[in-house]
Amino acid sequence: MEAIDRPWIIRTYSGHSSAKDSNSLYKTNLSKGQTGLSIAFDLPTQTGYDSDHPLAKGEVGKVGVPICHLGNIRTLFEGLPLDKMNTSMTINATAPWLLALYVALAEEQNVDPSKLRGTVQNDLIKEYLSRGTYIFPPEASLRLMGDVVTYCADHIPKWNPMNVCSYHLQEAGATPVQELSFALATAIAIIDEIKPRVTSKQFPIIVGRISFFLNAGIRFITEMCKIRAFVDLWDDILLNRYGIKDEKYRRFRYGVQVNSLGLTEQQPENNVYRILIELLAVTISKRARARAVQLPAWNEALGLPRPWDQQWSLRMQQILAFETDLLEYEDLFDGSAVVDEKVRSIKEEAMIELNQILANGGAVKSIEFMKTRLVESNAERVRQIESGEIKRIGVNLYQETYPSPFVNSETSVLTTKINEHDQIKDLWHWRENRNEDQAQTALAKLAKTAKLGQNILPPSIIAAKSGVTTGEWASVLRQIHGEFRTPIGISTSPSNNVQGLDDLRASVDAISSKLGRRLKILIGKPGLDGHSNGAEQIAYRARDIGMQIVYHGIRFTVDELIARAVDEDVHIIGLSILSGSHVELVSELMAKLPDYGIEKTPIVVGGIIPDSDQEDLLELGVSAVFTPKDYHLNEVFQDIIAIVEAQLSKANA
Amino acid sequence: MEAIDRPWIIRTYSGHSSAKDSNSLYKTNLSKGQTGLSIAFDLPTQTGYDSDHPLAKGEVGKVGVPICHLGNIRTLFEGLPLDKMNTSMTINATAPWLLALYVALAEEQNVDPSKLRGTVQNDLIKEYLSRGTYIFPPEASLRLMGDVVTYCADHIPKWNPMNVCSYHLQEAGATPVQELSFALATAIAIIDEIKPRVTSKQFPIIVGRISFFLNAGIRFITEMCKIRAFVDLWDDILLNRYGIKDEKYRRFRYGVQVNSLGLTEQQPENNVYRILIELLAVTISKRARARAVQLPAWNEALGLPRPWDQQWSLRMQQILAFETDLLEYEDLFDGSAVVDEKVRSIKEEAMIELNQILANGGAVKSIEFMKTRLVESNAERVRQIESGEIKRIGVNLYQETYPSPFVNSETSVLTTKINEHDQIKDLWHWRENRNEDQAQTALAKLAKTAKLGQNILPPSIIAAKSGVTTGEWASVLRQIHGEFRTPIGISTSPSNNVQGLDDLRASVDAISSKLGRRLKILIGKPGLDGHSNGAEQIAYRARDIGMQIVYHGIRFTVDELIARAVDEDVHIIGLSILSGSHVELVSELMAKLPDYGIEKTPIVVGGIIPDSDQEDLLELGVSAVFTPKDYHLNEVFQDIIAIVEAQLSKANA
Repeated sequence: MEAIDRPWIIRTYSGHSSAKDSNSLYKTNLSKGQTGLSIAFDLPTQTGYDSDHPLAKGEVGKVGVPICHLGNIRTLFEGLPLDKMNTSMTINATAPWLLALYVALAEEQNVDPSKLRGTVQNDLIKEYLSRGTYIFPPEASLRLMGDVVTYCADHIPKWNPMNVCSYHLQEAGATPVQELSFALATAIAIIDEIKPRVTSKQFPIIVGRISFFLNAGIRFITEMCKIRAFVDLWDDILLNRYGIKDEKYRRFRYGVQVNSLGLTEQQPENNVYRILIELLAVTISKRARARAVQLPAWNEALGLPRPWDQQWSLRMQQILAFETDLLEYEDLFDGSAVVDEKVRSIKEEAMIELNQILANGGAVKSIEFMKTRLVESNAERVRQIESGEIKRIGVNLYQETYPSPFVNSETSVLTTKINEHDQIKDLWHWRENRNEDQAQTALAKLAKTAKLGQNILPPSIIAAKSGVTTGEWASVLRQIHGEFRTPIGISTSPSNNVQGLDDLRASVDAISSKLGRRLKILIGKPGLDGHSNGAEQIAYRARDIGMQIVYHGIRFTVDELIARAVDEDVHIIGLSILSGSHVELVSELMAKLPDYGIEKTPIVVGGIIPDSDQEDLLELGVSAVFTPKDYHLNEVFQDIIAIVEAQLSKANA
Repeated sequence: MEAIDRPWIIRTYSGHSSAKDSNSLYKTNLSKGQTGLSIAFDLPTQTGYDSDHPLAKGEVGKVGVPICHLGNIRTLFEGLPLDKMNTSMTINATAPWLLALYVALAEEQNVDPSKLRGTVQNDLIKEYLSRGTYIFPPEASLRLMGDVVTYCADHIPKWNPMNVCSYHLQEAGATPVQELSFALATAIAIIDEIKPRVTSKQFPIIVGRISFFLNAGIRFITEMCKIRAFVDLWDDILLNRYGIKDEKYRRFRYGVQVNSLGLTEQQPENNVYRILIELLAVTISKRARARAVQLPAWNEALGLPRPWDQQWSLRMQQILAFETDLLEYEDLFDGSAVVDEKVRSIKEEAMIELNQILANGGAVKSIEFMKTRLVESNAERVRQIESGEIKRIGVNLYQETYPSPFVNSETSVLTTKINEHDQIKDLWHWRENRNEDQAQTALAKLAKTAKLGQNILPPSIIAAKSGVTTGEWASVLRQIHGEFRTPIGISTSPSNNVQGLDDLRASVDAISSKLGRRLKILIGKPGLDGHSNGAEQIAYRARDIGMQIVYHGIRFTVDELIARAVDEDVHIIGLSILSGSHVELVSELMAKLPDYGIEKTPIVVGGIIPDSDQEDLLELGVSAVFTPKDYHLNEVFQDIIAIVEAQLSKANA
């Protein structure tokens, strides 16, 4: 039988260590049948710092590839002609800059930018809500997002200049209805931003280039219906709110990375099933089929996947696309009463939520509202896993297992040796060897353009060609737009949400009387890591059990956190680190505590921390390490209370 | 949300070595959340031989558990109260006997047989067509199948007395339409057998107990539609052909084991994806959802799965049933135009095929017809894999791979030490200690009942309680009904099917002239193994390339095969062995060849043969070993021709 639909673009989100290592990884991935690239950047690149910036320490090349300048991106795509690639870049605050570097490289390769295909994520709203790699305040961010969209319309017409990205909303706990309504609110915000900046002839075409980047969780029927709801509502909004008559510009186009939130560290081999079921959600319905898919690897909850793990994950897409008959059928659910009814009910609920956001003044004005909703949804999800209402095989059901022959903490993940030093040396060499006048002129031009509120893409491309670095580019814009700290989504006022928490509340009360004041915890996220879900849930539960919480969100230096601990006189410090930089950051903290005279304050650490590193952290003097395995938050707090109790006894002894 | 459907029964097909080992395996499986048992019996038990029979040599405990008598089944279910179990027994020719042992054990446990739940497969038609564990001629088999069905109706009403089993048809290459029509033809044959034997009041109730055991391949949408077609056609046949008015007796109830044919030895870790996609086919549609599912393990193509592999496979079902929202929805495809149309076209094609079988006199009279159709379909499938029309990741697409960290020939499968000696000693001890008079009386009664054409269940149950053994029970019936050899499905007349085979035909012609007569190959299946697909496809292709073939089907002794080779004066002998007994059987053959003076005839062996065993076979003097990896049959034949060529040169030197 003949296929009646083409396979989606098959990608693997990857990149680490250095541009050179990542380049060779991409070449291998393509040789294995991957049909698109998906670039992971490291946190300094995402947040606009060069590799030699103090905040970049320990983060260079960790969660992605470090790109400081045109030379790095040249290396990254060495041997990969850009007119043949379909490249997805997960980049947001620095999206204009990375796109500028990509365009500059295309011109070096004699590729007309109009031939470039791919996408930059370029969705800052969800960065405020969940992912945390924003830099500037919302209005400036929206302006920059618009710069990318309008520039692409004129010069890179086949590029998807913005992926409205609800992926991270689901990772932060969004329900399907929230994922849908918050993403549509974000899309409306960007459309409203660009509408006055383009001609009415350009407008529908530009809107037609806006794509989405969704998530799909394990409840795959609901997820599939959610996407059908996206298809319908997007069409409806573009037609009725924006008057876009041509159907082809109203088509809902989306890429996807499936859910990592439901992957388990326990019996991690089972994650392959979860990933495949989620992949089904975004491919089974032709009318709501993803244009591009990237999948996590089974061992992501354990550490960095090896090349073999990535290959294994890739094979999942290939088997579904090429061995099954999925692509031989028209939409399987058109006409289905059950699916129609579910889609209808999701749309109805989403419209209620969306209308509320619009009534509040739209997405930008509703960031705190949406953030609070997300933290609450996630708290409810966490509670349901603890109670067993949400079943997780290996976590709260069928925990007993044979030892896995696949899992060995020494060998079942990738161990990389990242040479931060080489990257920094290369950067210094780059700066020394560039034409300094030309670079400074380009930066001045960039500053001027930004101040005038003009599109920063053209001067950014000149800056890229002039040897400007990522940190310099961002620094200019930081000076102009300022920086921003997003709402944390948790009220610090006392909680009513006390069900099932009586014992813990009593324990907190008891130790608080011994301490002479309420037990107080600092929850800190040191470094550039923006994954705040864990920290938020700890803060949320701590508040619910009657502790006093000090939590101000992401991206603090170790010194800032210690100063805060001293000011607030906390009884215990909990650090949450998901970037993999836990050893570096905790070492720094432990070394500095005595300088501030709080070396007796107990420290606990949470994050994705391999077994061997846990031992290192305990040796450094940390009192306890918590990982995703410790899903029972009440037990985590029993441990925390016991740690403070022990410290108190020691002090009183 | 609340589930609106209960999860299917979750099983793992398992059993090996001994009743004691299998018992402990079942207990572990149940403790891991399995909700039903599925017993695998060894080949001697399936074909009615005791463990000490010469034909059982090397086969005891290999592909399942050996059950010779009530003592063995007592051990098998030690600590497993039968009124709490839902037990599936994959047993056919000896189904009346195994059911008799089960009933005898239930009575020992003080469990009323009316409380027993489970199934015996009891479908001999598909044994003739593909699986090969038949004993008696078709008419006698049909009679025995009817004995089980009617006995259950009277005494074990909750038991499924027959699983019309199309599973093995698909394994033998059946298309969805063939699977559907051949299974329905089989069901009609059994209904026609039992109809005159029961009252008209009993009839619909008995028919309502007939269930099916299906297969599901990787083309999962088509498979799902196939099952919907089963639901419709079964309803239609029972209503219109048999006038069964009560809808509840027309309900299509089925269990499933998903396809093993598409699992690959190459990059075997990918098999988990195939298995899950196939599981989807039989669960995603509520109206066509399996009642019970058992899944293969990822490494089945490599050898015997370890307990951990079985657990991993079990987790797949649990995640789909308990973590996803699948069971919360009514049927997702009711109303789907695409699905309706596909189901309609499958039904239409199946009815054409079914009507042809019925016109030929029904399933029993059409065994050769159906067998020939299956071999042809399988040959077409094999050809399409060779040509790449059917894509198989790792086989004919994306073959290049990183070395798998999961696969290690020493450790990635189970290595069992089967103690055939202990089993035989136990059997002798059993025979010595039983009341011999009582056993002989029971056997005499069994013989008498069988001769009279009465239901053999009652005397079989008495025989079970009287210490009779499996071999004795079958031997009595062999004497009465005789034995049978099924059609092989391949014409030995010259072939017109020569497309793309020109080079090979030329090679065969060339060596044939050198030999002075047509190159002649004996294809032999020694031992009890009934998996003949591989042998058939080799025979089919050998004929197509102009070789003279000697192939007479399954279950020959080594001596019989050697005698045939001598009589037919063949140039080469190819043995096909899938039971795992390759080392024992080949050793025997190589040792005996000199006695017959044909020690110079080259021997090649095909089957599921682990790497380490391949070396052993080569050391024994085998010229080449072929495994499922060698899917390119033309290359296999190039090797075979070269081996004969080399032998000829040596002889002429």
